[in-house]
Amino acid sequence: MAYNLLKGKRGIIFGALNDMSIAWKVAELAHEEGAEFVLTNTPIALRMGTLSELAAKCNAQIIPSDATSVDDLENLVIKSMEILGGKIDFVLHSIGMSPNVRKGLTYDRLNYDFYHKTLDISAMSFHKVLHVCRKLDAINEWGSVVALSYVAAQRTLYGYNDMADAKALLESIARSFGYIYGRDKKIRVNTVSQSPTVTTAGSGVKGIDSLIDFSERMSPLGNATAEDCANYCITLFSDLTRKVTMQNLFHDGGFSSMGMSWRAMHQYDKSFRDCVNDGD
Amino acid sequence: MAYNLLKGKRGIIFGALNDMSIAWKVAELAHEEGAEFVLTNTPIALRMGTLSELAAKCNAQIIPSDATSVDDLENLVIKSMEILGGKIDFVLHSIGMSPNVRKGLTYDRLNYDFYHKTLDISAMSFHKVLHVCRKLDAINEWGSVVALSYVAAQRTLYGYNDMADAKALLESIARSFGYIYGRDKKIRVNTVSQSPTVTTAGSGVKGIDSLIDFSERMSPLGNATAEDCANYCITLFSDLTRKVTMQNLFHDGGFSSMGMSWRAMHQYDKSFRDCVNDGD
Amino acid sequence: MAYNLLKGKRGIIFGALNDMSIAWKVAELAHEEGAEFVLTNTPIALRMGTLSELAAKCNAQIIPSDATSVDDLENLVIKSMEILGGKIDFVLHSIGMSPNVRKGLTYDRLNYDFYHKTLDISAMSFHKVLHVCRKLDAINEWGSVVALSYVAAQRTLYGYNDMADAKALLESIARSFGYIYGRDKKIRVNTVSQSPTVTTAGSGVKGIDSLIDFSERMSPLGNATAEDCANYCITLFSDLTRKVTMQNLFHDGGFSSMGMSWRAMHQYDKSFRDCVNDGD
Amino acid sequence: MAYNLLKGKRGIIFGALNDMSIAWKVAELAHEEGAEFVLTNTPIALRMGTLSELAAKCNAQIIPSDATSVDDLENLVIKSMEILGGKIDFVLHSIGMSPNVRKGLTYDRLNYDFYHKTLDISAMSFHKVLHVCRKLDAINEWGSVVALSYVAAQRTLYGYNDMADAKALLESIARSFGYIYGRDKKIRVNTVSQSPTVTTAGSGVKGIDSLIDFSERMSPLGNATAEDCANYCITLFSDLTRKVTMQNLFHDGGFSSMGMSWRAMHQYDKSFRDCVNDGD
Repeated sequence: MAYNLLKGKRGIIFGALNDMSIAWKVAELAHEEGAEFVLTNTPIALRMGTLSELAAKCNAQIIPSDATSVDDLENLVIKSMEILGGKIDFVLHSIGMSPNVRKGLTYDRLNYDFYHKTLDISAMSFHKVLHVCRKLDAINEWGSVVALSYVAAQRTLYGYNDMADAKALLESIARSFGYIYGRDKKIRVNTVSQSPTVTTAGSGVKGIDSLIDFSERMSPLGNATAEDCANYCITLFSDLTRKVTMQNLFHDGGFSSMGMSWRAMHQYDKSFRDCVNDGD
Repeated sequence: MAYNLLKGKRGIIFGALNDMSIAWKVAELAHEEGAEFVLTNTPIALRMGTLSELAAKCNAQIIPSDATSVDDLENLVIKSMEILGGKIDFVLHSIGMSPNVRKGLTYDRLNYDFYHKTLDISAMSFHKVLHVCRKLDAINEWGSVVALSYVAAQRTLYGYNDMADAKALLESIARSFGYIYGRDKKIRVNTVSQSPTVTTAGSGVKGIDSLIDFSERMSPLGNATAEDCANYCITLFSDLTRKVTMQNLFHDGGFSSMGMSWRAMHQYDKSFRDCVNDGD
Repeated sequence: MAYNLLKGKRGIIFGALNDMSIAWKVAELAHEEGAEFVLTNTPIALRMGTLSELAAKCNAQIIPSDATSVDDLENLVIKSMEILGGKIDFVLHSIGMSPNVRKGLTYDRLNYDFYHKTLDISAMSFHKVLHVCRKLDAINEWGSVVALSYVAAQRTLYGYNDMADAKALLESIARSFGYIYGRDKKIRVNTVSQSPTVTTAGSGVKGIDSLIDFSERMSPLGNATAEDCANYCITLFSDLTRKVTMQNLFHDGGFSSMGMSWRAMHQYDKSFRDCVNDGD
Repeated sequence: MAYNLLKGKRGIIFGALNDMSIAWKVAELAHEEGAEFVLTNTPIALRMGTLSELAAKCNAQIIPSDATSVDDLENLVIKSMEILGGKIDFVLHSIGMSPNVRKGLTYDRLNYDFYHKTLDISAMSFHKVLHVCRKLDAINEWGSVVALSYVAAQRTLYGYNDMADAKALLESIARSFGYIYGRDKKIRVNTVSQSPTVTTAGSGVKGIDSLIDFSERMSPLGNATAEDCANYCITLFSDLTRKVTMQNLFHDGGFSSMGMSWRAMHQYDKSFRDCVNDGD
């Protein structure tokens, strides 16, 4: 049941690793909806993942690039326009990584070189993508750029660590660059704040399973899946959302607007029953 | 260039008056996208406006109803299901009116009967629509309900008066009912916070022309028009946004995320000149 | 350890019922800090509660008034100025009641007369207080008006029902009137969004005990108590916060900025242990 | 009219340069309110400014430190405890600088080394201060840490450039560290989002005069001054605000809650006149 929402549109999709990735689902759906695009990820991710499968399926080419490198990005954007035969209409940024999380350094004991890296990889890379596209005048008028974020940008979650700061920075970059790119070229820039999603990247965050359960019970519609997110991103790349910009759009089954649900409270209440013997 | 995004979907559209109305534009586009729907407005609005033209164009029936009357709404919803041959998939609530604004009573001198009416017409009517739909089990799973709002719900604008309070209440109702309707029936409820739009309703607000000019210059993409809003509403009624609920979605060319733009500041600066000769 | 922060200031305090009331604690502390004030509540509350004790302790007079009645409020404000010997410097609005909650009507089945009453008592009364004060020019320049709110204005909590809408409306009124009263008379208007607090009023809300436990574990500083709230209100009435206006100020030990704490997650996790036999 | 609000409290104040600095005003007032504290700034700022005057006036010692250097901060915190004779009760972080702004590089053409520096100086330094204090267990229970921010963290302002991103990051750090420090040590961490203020640092921002005029007319109470900000900070350091944490507190005369004021609109309207003769 494709709608041809992206017919004739050209894109660049960052961050697909394997079929659990949100970016993977976006690519599959963008293909069904008529888009042509280039896939990109870092050389190491290309070795670890299975991106060539996706490329084959979507008739897409892969261009390796490190999104923290302006040179790599310039190469990527120039080649993408060559391959696709014209300027770009949409970009998906689905990139995040914290060396502090990986090394188990808690937020009050961050390594500052790692902290800079977290911000560089997960947020400033978004600025670099936009910067390079603008310098090369690579995006068509009314183009659409989306980055994936998380509610940790607004509310602290145990264990999410410096990725929370990175997401806050990412959302700020979307606003700051969105103003300039909108004013000058009619290009919109937004972030989608997605439910916690079981991806290879997300699985490194401490206590993610419990959090996903809680989030599921708190959200009246349940957590949004990677497939759901792909559907939503397609609308944001389409011509139907041209005046939405500089927004952080919660796509989370309602979680962000919940204080407490019956289902989560009911589960929580069970923790106090007699047969629970923990002295805490 | 229709996408068939609403093919097979049934809806109820409140609040179209004439071809300046946002609801009118939504109806036209919903028709193009394959939806069938019922149009409704108050008997007095039906006399003042030109809704029959729209009905003819969209092959839609009109059922008069006062959205503050539960009885009228029950009649509307039951008949709509009969006419459309099944449960409803989407509802648009585009209703707002302040007797205080009409009578020129400023916010510090509200008439309290009028204030209750402002809230009843512009916000509590949304609760009544949802209430009646739920009582009659009139909306299909994964249905979508949208009400139109304005940034005055978050930020005070000179002259918008008690409509600001009504919009704050409206957005709260969307969250409160969205939780219940989502949890129980997988139905999503959102508000769209639209740019100031020149409609028959909007034209009563004091100083609206200056405000629209300022808003246009502040917004990197310019003000969103009624047509733009219709496009956006279609995405929210489609199956691609199923996990978006309890949100207030700014559809305003970026206005809500702006503190000050170059264009608005540049215009503002002119106000200090002895003589304004600039053609800009 | 009084600071004389309110020395020479005159106030009106709405909503003290008994020594569990936040307004009671505010009155005690305002007295210690040098203020003189009038206490007020509805005639029925005066019979149910123990306000005369507080009045004696604070050397304050009690004037009965129904805050939904403009006549009562006019009488209250005029008499307060007579008793206190001049214009007012601060007002506390701590008023909230939902007949729907009392009658056990859930949010999807509200009685609309009750709904109007909830809004009238819990929110529009705040407009009436401000309206009457302004009409009588009863508040000194740089005076301070505070109403008590709750995070339900932003996020839906199971069981809080139409009080959530009332709090959203209350906060909107603070902004709307705060603009006018600030511009014209330099008077500030704010709401304090307080942790769930065990008061006689609060105890009617469904599942309040579990919610308070969850809130306590989510908030890094724990729930704010009524005494804590009194301390905070004193700063807002003092001359040290003159440029804070139109704000909703969270006073909640951090709850509003939390997504998930370790302590709450740890408790939640216990609910899944083996000896829990519930099939849910 | 001192209240002794900070009697017996010990503090560290970052960022006073000269008598236009907010930090300078905070120091003066903290001194009046009974606090003892250490003043600190970078060696270069100490040469450029007149901090020794302030130190003499407040009977305070100056310890040079670069807040981006963990070593400097450790030295500062250890010496401060020695000088003051015990643990710290409050910290003010008033630090911000963008090499991109200084060099006139617009946001779409940032130098990335400079961008890292902007973030390091203006935001990550706040993490380092908190980190060092925590490692040395240097802050008493119920201590209070405040950093100064600006509404650019939420809304884009022409010319504010990468400082907007730095402020967004700063506010995120306040939440992230506020959770940990609150949970473990009952220490609160907040940011104050202050009106645009004419300081030596602020004067580098493009178009700041026009912005201050607009902000003044938009804010019902006018812009908050540095003295106003000092008053407010004192309440946040006092024992009366112990349960306020992880918040961004707008101290701006109402600006943040305004969409459009009569005064600003009236001025804006003049810009369209053929000849502006109005003396207003």
